[in-house]
Amino acid sequence: MAQRSEHRTQVGIVGAGPAGLVLARLLARAGIESVMLEARSRDHIEGRVRAGVLEAPTVELLRDAGVAGRLDREGMPHHGISLRFAETPGGPATDHRIDFADLVGTGITVYGQQEVVKDLLAERVDDAGLLVEFEVSGVGLHDVTTDTPSISYTAADGTEHLLRCDVIAGCDGYHGVSRPELLAGGEGTVAEREYPFGWLGVLAKAAPTTDELVYAHHDRGFALYSMRSPEVTRLYLQVPPDADPGVWPERRIWDELQTRLACDGFTLNEGELLEKPGVTGMRSMVTEPMRRGRLFLAGDAAHIVPPTGAKGMNLAIADVRVLAEALTAFYANGSQTGLDEYSATCLRRVWRAEHFSWFMTSMLHRFDRSTEAGDPFGLGLQRSQLRYTVTSRAAATSLAENYVGLPHGAA
Amino acid sequence: MAQRSEHRTQVGIVGAGPAGLVLARLLARAGIESVMLEARSRDHIEGRVRAGVLEAPTVELLRDAGVAGRLDREGMPHHGISLRFAETPGGPATDHRIDFADLVGTGITVYGQQEVVKDLLAERVDDAGLLVEFEVSGVGLHDVTTDTPSISYTAADGTEHLLRCDVIAGCDGYHGVSRPELLAGGEGTVAEREYPFGWLGVLAKAAPTTDELVYAHHDRGFALYSMRSPEVTRLYLQVPPDADPGVWPERRIWDELQTRLACDGFTLNEGELLEKPGVTGMRSMVTEPMRRGRLFLAGDAAHIVPPTGAKGMNLAIADVRVLAEALTAFYANGSQTGLDEYSATCLRRVWRAEHFSWFMTSMLHRFDRSTEAGDPFGLGLQRSQLRYTVTSRAAATSLAENYVGLPHGAA
Repeated sequence: MAQRSEHRTQVGIVGAGPAGLVLARLLARAGIESVMLEARSRDHIEGRVRAGVLEAPTVELLRDAGVAGRLDREGMPHHGISLRFAETPGGPATDHRIDFADLVGTGITVYGQQEVVKDLLAERVDDAGLLVEFEVSGVGLHDVTTDTPSISYTAADGTEHLLRCDVIAGCDGYHGVSRPELLAGGEGTVAEREYPFGWLGVLAKAAPTTDELVYAHHDRGFALYSMRSPEVTRLYLQVPPDADPGVWPERRIWDELQTRLACDGFTLNEGELLEKPGVTGMRSMVTEPMRRGRLFLAGDAAHIVPPTGAKGMNLAIADVRVLAEALTAFYANGSQTGLDEYSATCLRRVWRAEHFSWFMTSMLHRFDRSTEAGDPFGLGLQRSQLRYTVTSRAAATSLAENYVGLPHGAA
Repeated sequence: MAQRSEHRTQVGIVGAGPAGLVLARLLARAGIESVMLEARSRDHIEGRVRAGVLEAPTVELLRDAGVAGRLDREGMPHHGISLRFAETPGGPATDHRIDFADLVGTGITVYGQQEVVKDLLAERVDDAGLLVEFEVSGVGLHDVTTDTPSISYTAADGTEHLLRCDVIAGCDGYHGVSRPELLAGGEGTVAEREYPFGWLGVLAKAAPTTDELVYAHHDRGFALYSMRSPEVTRLYLQVPPDADPGVWPERRIWDELQTRLACDGFTLNEGELLEKPGVTGMRSMVTEPMRRGRLFLAGDAAHIVPPTGAKGMNLAIADVRVLAEALTAFYANGSQTGLDEYSATCLRRVWRAEHFSWFMTSMLHRFDRSTEAGDPFGLGLQRSQLRYTVTSRAAATSLAENYVGLPHGAA
């Protein structure tokens, strides 16, 4: 074995996405030391365009954590969304606004995940000078069922390291090493669902056609309109899960978006594509429990949601809030209670978000007629659900409270 | 062709269940004449134990129709139901009350369908002396796409009759002649869903254990407790759809009910079975449109719901309210508008009830692990839905408003 240098910290964090970065920030505020390991470069993680909807509780947490300065200046508060569909099959579509402010007294904030990452990295690395090791490779987790776990890795410069710690936070996503290490214990279970479609995503230099998000249920499939900034629009089309983006030249994409988003008084502004369109599969996944010994999973490492509910980043941040509180109690007085309850506490919110994301996905997409969800009865249920959601205050409130995010601790 | 006698009326009503009888009553109040044909005997239809939950709008309608005297004296107002389930898999079950009075300011009334039928028959036949032909056979519908439809039938005494009318109301259920006659036009579509289980129903001479209905979600399957009177309890067990009631001797039924309904402080009162237990399949069906020419379907002839939402009789009565109003306008001033809108108007409420019944069925039953609904992800969704329903006021309100019945005209 090559010579390797050993280090020690209190919490070893694998992955510098929103989960890892927010955890590190909350721990630092509580006087707990952490080291972060990230496989990608800083440029890469700051540049990835991902989710863009922050729940109200997420914004509050970032504010409480003292990292919401730019978010408060540049984030765009939204007070509702529109569900767009035809009242009668084949008829003209109309907009049905779900008024979050009226229904639940709060809203969401549109602010890109990569901006959250930039703000947190600037705070940790540039301001506080704390350690994030980028471009590490060969990460291995060791002795996670003991009180002295450790993480081995190769640094960007090729040197070998062993990080000893009290606790490992696995914030390294679905493809990271933390999830397999948790499952290797044999006690974990995985619940999964594949949806029979994907999203073709487009980022365009186009002025917003309207401010708020539009979720369109159309006979030809689902479409989603959102603005990202006064110059940038983000759009999605439901496509087959294995669709080749090559069969979607730019003109076809815009024509299909215009068709599916068509509504009286709405003409989608078009513009130059800012990145190559890509197709993302849609799936759900939950790993239970989210803990094995001293290894705690958070965010995508533990659970995946389809993007329809805009819950991915928000769930990750809700997880690490629970973990930070548990670790704060652990270091303050040796209490294991919070750590013991971590998984069950998180999973209640995770399953709520999984259910809401499944609900939104099922209500809004078009399913194949050969399946239960898309046969005449399934389609009848879907239409009734859409109509009920926009005509019942209770149903609209239910959608709204899930969308803006149930208060942390309530789900 | 044998000699047959001809009669004439304004509205020919096929079937003397709740739909037909309420329609006849509403028409009589508007001065419109009808003749009712029923395949079964009066004793038979007065004796059949069926549904027992009346929505608030159903009770109001029966009151407005002047046939709620005994209902108001003997019907039992309920202000809520309980959802009973274990918070953690395998843990003890707890009751979660859905408080209709608090959530939506109204409730339901427990009063057997056969009692509604008795009251309506007493009013029509015994008090008003109007015609209901029982035990007719060989019913045929003719010329339904003309303005002069007719109904041929053989009376109980073997004589042949032809009833000429302006309009035929097909209130003869799923197995009646009206539905095939509607579909024979080639324009109708049928949306259906079979559920992978049945209900084993038990009627017992046992004092109520508790007043309100209890819907129990248990690892071994769904169970439903309800009281029918101070002496009679109605109970159901989820069983395989093809279950042989023979494998369910009395002792096994009570043991299984005790297990599935177990809850701190609740011991089910047992008693003599008042009828042979039977197994009912669970399915959904919607026929669209509900009209062909001068033939109008109402109730089970047009749509079937699984019993979980207690909507069958209520939907039937909501249908004929719409039909009676349309016919009243038709006879008053020749207006076709109400008749033309009949199908679309009814189907909005029908689909809402189908969706609610599907929702209750899906939330409360236990599905096979080999299916999407019962796999680990499906089970996780189901548990989250249950928990959300009893912890969110919006979600509980949504259940409550559907259960007590959206106001007629609102769905």
